[in-house]
Amino acid sequence: MNFPTDLEIASEAKIQHIKHIAEKIGIDHDDLEYYGKYKAKIPLSYIDEEKIKKAKLILVTAINPTPAGEGKTTVSVGLSDGLNKIGKKAIAVLREPSLGPVFGMKGGAAGGGYAQVIPMVDINLHFTGDFAAIEKANNLLSALIDNNLQNKKHNLNIDPRTITWKRVMDMNDRSLRQIVIGLGGSNNGIAREEGFNITPASEVMAILCIAKDFEDLRERLGNIFVGYTFDKKPVYARDLKAEGAMAILLRDAIKPNLVQTLEGNPAILHGGPFANIAQGTNTIIATKTGLSLADFVVTEAGFGADLGAEKFFHIKCHYGKLKPDAFVLVATIRALRYHGGATKKGEFDKPNLQFVKNGIDNLKKHIENAFKFGLRPIVAINHFANDAEEEIQFVKDECEKLGVKAIIADEFLHGGAGMTELAAEVARCAFECGNDFQPLYKVTESVEHKLETVAREVYGADNVVYSQKAKNQLKTIYDLNLDKLPVCMAKTQKSLTDDETKIGRPSNFKITVREFEFAAGAGFIIPILGDMMRMPGLPNVPAAEGMSIDKNGVITGLS
Amino acid sequence: MNFPTDLEIASEAKIQHIKHIAEKIGIDHDDLEYYGKYKAKIPLSYIDEEKIKKAKLILVTAINPTPAGEGKTTVSVGLSDGLNKIGKKAIAVLREPSLGPVFGMKGGAAGGGYAQVIPMVDINLHFTGDFAAIEKANNLLSALIDNNLQNKKHNLNIDPRTITWKRVMDMNDRSLRQIVIGLGGSNNGIAREEGFNITPASEVMAILCIAKDFEDLRERLGNIFVGYTFDKKPVYARDLKAEGAMAILLRDAIKPNLVQTLEGNPAILHGGPFANIAQGTNTIIATKTGLSLADFVVTEAGFGADLGAEKFFHIKCHYGKLKPDAFVLVATIRALRYHGGATKKGEFDKPNLQFVKNGIDNLKKHIENAFKFGLRPIVAINHFANDAEEEIQFVKDECEKLGVKAIIADEFLHGGAGMTELAAEVARCAFECGNDFQPLYKVTESVEHKLETVAREVYGADNVVYSQKAKNQLKTIYDLNLDKLPVCMAKTQKSLTDDETKIGRPSNFKITVREFEFAAGAGFIIPILGDMMRMPGLPNVPAAEGMSIDKNGVITGLS
Repeated sequence: MNFPTDLEIASEAKIQHIKHIAEKIGIDHDDLEYYGKYKAKIPLSYIDEEKIKKAKLILVTAINPTPAGEGKTTVSVGLSDGLNKIGKKAIAVLREPSLGPVFGMKGGAAGGGYAQVIPMVDINLHFTGDFAAIEKANNLLSALIDNNLQNKKHNLNIDPRTITWKRVMDMNDRSLRQIVIGLGGSNNGIAREEGFNITPASEVMAILCIAKDFEDLRERLGNIFVGYTFDKKPVYARDLKAEGAMAILLRDAIKPNLVQTLEGNPAILHGGPFANIAQGTNTIIATKTGLSLADFVVTEAGFGADLGAEKFFHIKCHYGKLKPDAFVLVATIRALRYHGGATKKGEFDKPNLQFVKNGIDNLKKHIENAFKFGLRPIVAINHFANDAEEEIQFVKDECEKLGVKAIIADEFLHGGAGMTELAAEVARCAFECGNDFQPLYKVTESVEHKLETVAREVYGADNVVYSQKAKNQLKTIYDLNLDKLPVCMAKTQKSLTDDETKIGRPSNFKITVREFEFAAGAGFIIPILGDMMRMPGLPNVPAAEGMSIDKNGVITGLS
Repeated sequence: MNFPTDLEIASEAKIQHIKHIAEKIGIDHDDLEYYGKYKAKIPLSYIDEEKIKKAKLILVTAINPTPAGEGKTTVSVGLSDGLNKIGKKAIAVLREPSLGPVFGMKGGAAGGGYAQVIPMVDINLHFTGDFAAIEKANNLLSALIDNNLQNKKHNLNIDPRTITWKRVMDMNDRSLRQIVIGLGGSNNGIAREEGFNITPASEVMAILCIAKDFEDLRERLGNIFVGYTFDKKPVYARDLKAEGAMAILLRDAIKPNLVQTLEGNPAILHGGPFANIAQGTNTIIATKTGLSLADFVVTEAGFGADLGAEKFFHIKCHYGKLKPDAFVLVATIRALRYHGGATKKGEFDKPNLQFVKNGIDNLKKHIENAFKFGLRPIVAINHFANDAEEEIQFVKDECEKLGVKAIIADEFLHGGAGMTELAAEVARCAFECGNDFQPLYKVTESVEHKLETVAREVYGADNVVYSQKAKNQLKTIYDLNLDKLPVCMAKTQKSLTDDETKIGRPSNFKITVREFEFAAGAGFIIPILGDMMRMPGLPNVPAAEGMSIDKNGVITGLS
């Protein structure tokens, strides 16, 4: 018998009306805004700064992943279920998945196995419309820009060649990456180069996830940089008077979404920015809502700890005035094999102690990094059937030498019941490990200092090199007075370096900044260390081809 | 004191929880899918063919409108309130408005004055996400087409020059009308010409509005024509295996949306296809749901009766197996002045009996047309402050000569209370007028016969002329065996002819078919009689610039 698919498990779950979930965390039925029976938005009035101070924030991150990922979301959902199982009041606070990749090849982004958030199909499709609203706000700004170019009487003198703001669509659609718009004569706008990014790559998404309240959201929308005038003056969204209408489009999207885990525990999903060119973590509003409603919030940051956790600390904690109380580092035996040289297909799925021994340094580097931020990590070994006992024991022993506990996470097969040991340790450590989070840099320092600190301390690089293009763009950042923002590194997640083929714990390397971008509204500078995909494509045989729905609404082929 | 804006009236209304509205029409609370407190989706299981046979369907249409429109939606909402006021169980079943134009210059599309559906802001923004879902389904098909072109192993040999399927976005964005996609090298798709239409112009919208159930929806999606292969074979969405995933995206959008009027009466808003290149009327599913839940359903068709009502009869009634029981023809004194020669700005807003006398023939032609369909019309004079008593009396007298009652509709200022006389007459006539609807043509007849019947009988044309291009395209329609579909005329709404400057009741004219298109999925042939706008632009000063929202969510500038 095959293990059931995520969709099969999710479809068979006994899902509860969301009002019962809300009840568990003290939300009045009447305050919820329902989206059907199993999803609801929570009003912002539930954010309570006093409660936030008392609650514990648990960050789940990972070592550098194999191409298949390490299962951070699955561990996060399972850990929250585990905490509830041992009698703690915990909420998983996570990102919303993007719709585009669902029709390509990826599995659902709502956990997996017996550690999922449900209703799975809704979450993977339109959910509560947040992405659609973000897309609309983004594209309204684009329409206002092109309308301004078209307009002879009432224009800002924008040079169309300098426009950096792009349209977005939540679809894997490579043919929209590079396009020319405004063709067909004088009624159809001004011809110019343009491109679509996928919606999670929109700065509007990054802004929604950083905004602390509605006014902050509107102000950040107004701060979006659009391009330059012909006389080289910067143009912002506020110059187009775009931010009011954009904010109106986001008036519901700003409210966090309540759903449940397979075990009927509360989960909040809200926002889903890219983890490469943006911060890769759910909204600050959702995290604060979770901390206001529970004693423990389990959250995650996209990609490995070198990217996700670093940005979580320097961007999200900075803007949200948040401090993590526990740090869970997810590792898989197969990823350690991979870092130890098992890079060929299939090779990392077979027990091999030598590979694990070779690869353990990747994990050790991430453990060291956690200590640099003032946090004692707990290693969660996300369990796979082909993990050998001696491999697991080796990892546990190595962690112990560093004063760190490594605990099996068995959420995929057993849900919260497979997570009680880890949950107990996390709950203990949040109080007793003496964690005292400190960022590695101050935002007031120079851009170079900030990014070099990350490169040296987190990646282990010797130094940072700047291309001529990057140097010019850095000057622009200083000219626009945007240098006092945190940096949001755009780097491969597969390696501690900027070269995805360098596995393990590389040393004696430099980092090259090819370009700089900036998100003036969201509030960060983006050093680009490689090619960043912002619009995926569909594979040869898209998942969409295998999807169907019968007359009773039963869906097949969605994974 | 100024009369309050629609937004002010809507904001001050005492809105009820939607469960109380549902209760009035016998919907169990538990069956509703709530979208917040004031909107809900009704499951398809409420459609009851036995009840549909007993309920009365009232079509509200209009004479050829002035540029400002005749207020069909306002009259429809007011008439439903009026019917409820006189003790009848009535529901207004209407279209959902498009989001794009909200940021341009138009007013809200949810009625006006004291005859509105609420929550007004929600309805004019994302509402329940139906348009976003339609947009996504449309654009998934586009992504699958371009992915197929890109694909070397697994492709349908589609000739990119023949692709007629376009992407859509619910935004007034002229610079997307004509674009080139797939630029930037071999990773970015195949370069080809493309364009975006606004979402209501999507055939997916037309299909949603024609589908009788979920299976029918999926089958129609599969029938969408995409283009040709290099060896001239037609390619349909089903050849791309697109219809399953598209249907999945529409699984919630297919359910009708329940809202309320300002007076707390139920209203169903569902679907909003273009009235030029599509059928311009809400979903068949919504109409049938309304007829299953009330004794009277008041619905409308886009544009004047020559376009909207004709398509309602020949397309919607055909596919939905519906028969209207009453026919309300909305006229305004100012439109009659316009048809009588008051075509200059401001001129039709001043009393002038002579203009009305000159213009009455437009109304008379629409009255005659109603009789041709087997229906005795009731004329609703949508009242404006500058209507003179003698103008109104003249219209009443002229109608009486034709055996037709003309009654003042005063819904804008007085809501249902201003509509009781009209409501009483409509309720009486639905039973007693002997209405027996008959279409003017059978779909099994030739394309030429069908469209010439409409041109002669409805427009009053002498004959129909075909361009060479249209002749070629007509041959294609026969080749593809699509000739047995109803015709969906794409013509200006401002005139009974295909020339918008010809006001009144023109005679001795011919109709020119410039092109043919077809909607193989929705199921109609589209004779194009003029330039059809499918992607509006924003005006010099877009309404978006004046919009704002404060920290409490209070919106201003949305009209």
